[in-house]
Amino acid sequence: MTLEQLKELAARDDPSAFLHHAVHLHPSDLADVLSGLDESVRARIIAELPTELASGALAEMGRDEHPEELLLAVGPEYAAELVAELPADDAADLVADLLPGDREAVLADVSDRASVEQLLAYPEDTAGGLMTTELVAVREDATLADAIAEIRAQSGEEDALYQVYAVDAAGRLRGIVPIARLIVASPERRVRDVMEEPDVQVHPEQDQEQVARVMARYNLVAVPVVDAQGRLLGLVTFDDVIDVVEAETTEDILQFAGASPAELLIAPWRTAVRARLPWLSVNLLTAFLAAGVVFVFQNTLARMVILAVWMPVIAGMGGNAGTQALAITVRRLALRLLPRNRAAEVIRKEVFVGAINGLATGAVVGVMAAAVGHGWMLGLVVCLAMLGNLMVAGFAGAFIPIILERNGVDPAIASSIFVTTFTDVCGFGLLLGLGTILLL
Amino acid sequence: MTLEQLKELAARDDPSAFLHHAVHLHPSDLADVLSGLDESVRARIIAELPTELASGALAEMGRDEHPEELLLAVGPEYAAELVAELPADDAADLVADLLPGDREAVLADVSDRASVEQLLAYPEDTAGGLMTTELVAVREDATLADAIAEIRAQSGEEDALYQVYAVDAAGRLRGIVPIARLIVASPERRVRDVMEEPDVQVHPEQDQEQVARVMARYNLVAVPVVDAQGRLLGLVTFDDVIDVVEAETTEDILQFAGASPAELLIAPWRTAVRARLPWLSVNLLTAFLAAGVVFVFQNTLARMVILAVWMPVIAGMGGNAGTQALAITVRRLALRLLPRNRAAEVIRKEVFVGAINGLATGAVVGVMAAAVGHGWMLGLVVCLAMLGNLMVAGFAGAFIPIILERNGVDPAIASSIFVTTFTDVCGFGLLLGLGTILLL
Repeated sequence: MTLEQLKELAARDDPSAFLHHAVHLHPSDLADVLSGLDESVRARIIAELPTELASGALAEMGRDEHPEELLLAVGPEYAAELVAELPADDAADLVADLLPGDREAVLADVSDRASVEQLLAYPEDTAGGLMTTELVAVREDATLADAIAEIRAQSGEEDALYQVYAVDAAGRLRGIVPIARLIVASPERRVRDVMEEPDVQVHPEQDQEQVARVMARYNLVAVPVVDAQGRLLGLVTFDDVIDVVEAETTEDILQFAGASPAELLIAPWRTAVRARLPWLSVNLLTAFLAAGVVFVFQNTLARMVILAVWMPVIAGMGGNAGTQALAITVRRLALRLLPRNRAAEVIRKEVFVGAINGLATGAVVGVMAAAVGHGWMLGLVVCLAMLGNLMVAGFAGAFIPIILERNGVDPAIASSIFVTTFTDVCGFGLLLGLGTILLL
Repeated sequence: MTLEQLKELAARDDPSAFLHHAVHLHPSDLADVLSGLDESVRARIIAELPTELASGALAEMGRDEHPEELLLAVGPEYAAELVAELPADDAADLVADLLPGDREAVLADVSDRASVEQLLAYPEDTAGGLMTTELVAVREDATLADAIAEIRAQSGEEDALYQVYAVDAAGRLRGIVPIARLIVASPERRVRDVMEEPDVQVHPEQDQEQVARVMARYNLVAVPVVDAQGRLLGLVTFDDVIDVVEAETTEDILQFAGASPAELLIAPWRTAVRARLPWLSVNLLTAFLAAGVVFVFQNTLARMVILAVWMPVIAGMGGNAGTQALAITVRRLALRLLPRNRAAEVIRKEVFVGAINGLATGAVVGVMAAAVGHGWMLGLVVCLAMLGNLMVAGFAGAFIPIILERNGVDPAIASSIFVTTFTDVCGFGLLLGLGTILLL
């Protein structure tokens, strides 16, 4: 049975047929099915499924889907059971959005409550907020046989175990043993003799994007999190990195579009208005600049109304070309593919590309403008305005994000608003200015 | 010494000081340093560093940075040595962009040439193009002690070993043994008794984005690649997934901006023109629609030039609001957070958000328009045009990507061009149409 069929089954009034199949689902798939259902149906399904599966699905639900509300809907007693089933990091994520009173009730029965509360202290977009505290640590002077015994002592969690950590008497991280080495090397050897230097370690307050970047760069399956004294606190694993990269992608695309990354994807209209109106207001201020240019040239327009017909063409093409250059530049900066000493070269290239594209499209538009009437001189004005505006677009699309980045501002932030301001103002200025000089 | 300092050292005329430090670098960091240097300097550094480090850095360089050119620059003999040092999948990626004659020369000395050539047969954006053939497979009726012996036989590669694969006599995948189980379970047990069902497997021709999505969904450290008969061919590992997610992010942002994802980030101007001109041409066609609307209302504009001043404000705000709604919707679709039965609800929400934001900004602009002169009636026209256009923007921003996706088209593809066409045409139509009715 496909996931789509299961979703249809789950949406029926009587969920018993769905529950029959659901027990074989992967928690991630169950979370997916739940995301399409109404709150009351979701709560009933969670309440009737085995605790382990239900808690796994809650842990896999995105924050946008408010798993904590579902947790409340099943009542505090079963909620406490569900949370008790989860590893400390998933439990902390799940209860993080609950009100203090609810959180208290849900955590009452959790045996590992201290770990959960410790993890709750870290902001969720930091290494501390991502990390798990379930790991195998052994003393560096232990033998590999001791390490193996320690792994055996940790019941049931061994499937996701890829590294063993060596610590000193004070709990400070000293080395990492890839788990395959425990198999290959002789059990009498000391951990310290087979361990590797921990090249990369992060602090709990470090931003999740930095952590993801360092793990992606060095292809790490896990990175240890240590405190200021170097004591091992936890572990960020590869699966967290993928979630972070996807979250940061969402943030980048929303920022790029002049939408706020604070707007969750599934937000009620109030949140959407609060997130978007500020950027629309910024856009309004910049639009007044473009309007001001037209205001200045009112006399020209009054004498030659046909110029107003070509205004949206010149401005729209400039906006599009600028956004193209911007997207390329923002992405190069995000992936660290734009060294500082290449900035001038990149800007020159974008202006040149703008000139070529401006000549090509300007020629077409110029011929059309002349053909529609008002003579070849109008065609020349439109063509020159297009050429000039696409060069401006290339310049602004590369220059603005580079400058924002040099000043410590995220180059994606609403850059498209600023680039289109540039192209609107310059496009109208060129078209109407050249029109005033050459046509009147 | 920081990476920045090393980059400065590497850029000097005499690279010997850099070479002294470079031997301690991680291959990823060396690749990063090389990306900022001229071709001749890069070739000299690669030629003078130890083969293992140099080949690792080549493997870590992005395709945009043309490591294959660097390979040619050091001469065929050393190039062959460098390639021979790499695992088959990295070797295949590195030589994939070489001309057939050059590839022949470089592969001449590679012992594992058959594997490399087999991998070269798969397109690079498929599971086959991503996978490694270096894995540990044992018969399902073997004992764990046999499996451990097999791991020992594979010298030196054990650090990145997370799972052992069980196959039958015909090489068909039968199960997966997480490596920690080899430590925990008794060595006399049979592989078949401790292995897990391979829940997820992929085929070599499957698109890399699908593979990344399934690995992210189920938090898999590796996924087996099997042929049509179920025979184990290779393995895609978690580190490939991060690269894929980053590449797909680049593609999404470029498409979103109406730039072509075929344009590599570091492309010469010719490639950039070829990639962008087609979309600019599409944009030109759509801009003619907006120009057509203005053309129709020339008489209105001739009698009331002040309307031309408010044209860019109405159009620009509509474009921005539409792009906001579009970004949210495209991202929800990409992350499968928009079930089909919620589409109408999402579109209604966006239109409503547009109405609220349109009233708020329309009121401001209306008062300004009235204040600049031409009376309260002009203010009312501008306000109503803003309200209407932001509702259109919400509708188009949600509706266009949803319709594209239902018809099997990537919803990100140049949607911003189509949304701004909508908002330009409707914005001018509303402003000039209402102006004609209410002001003349």
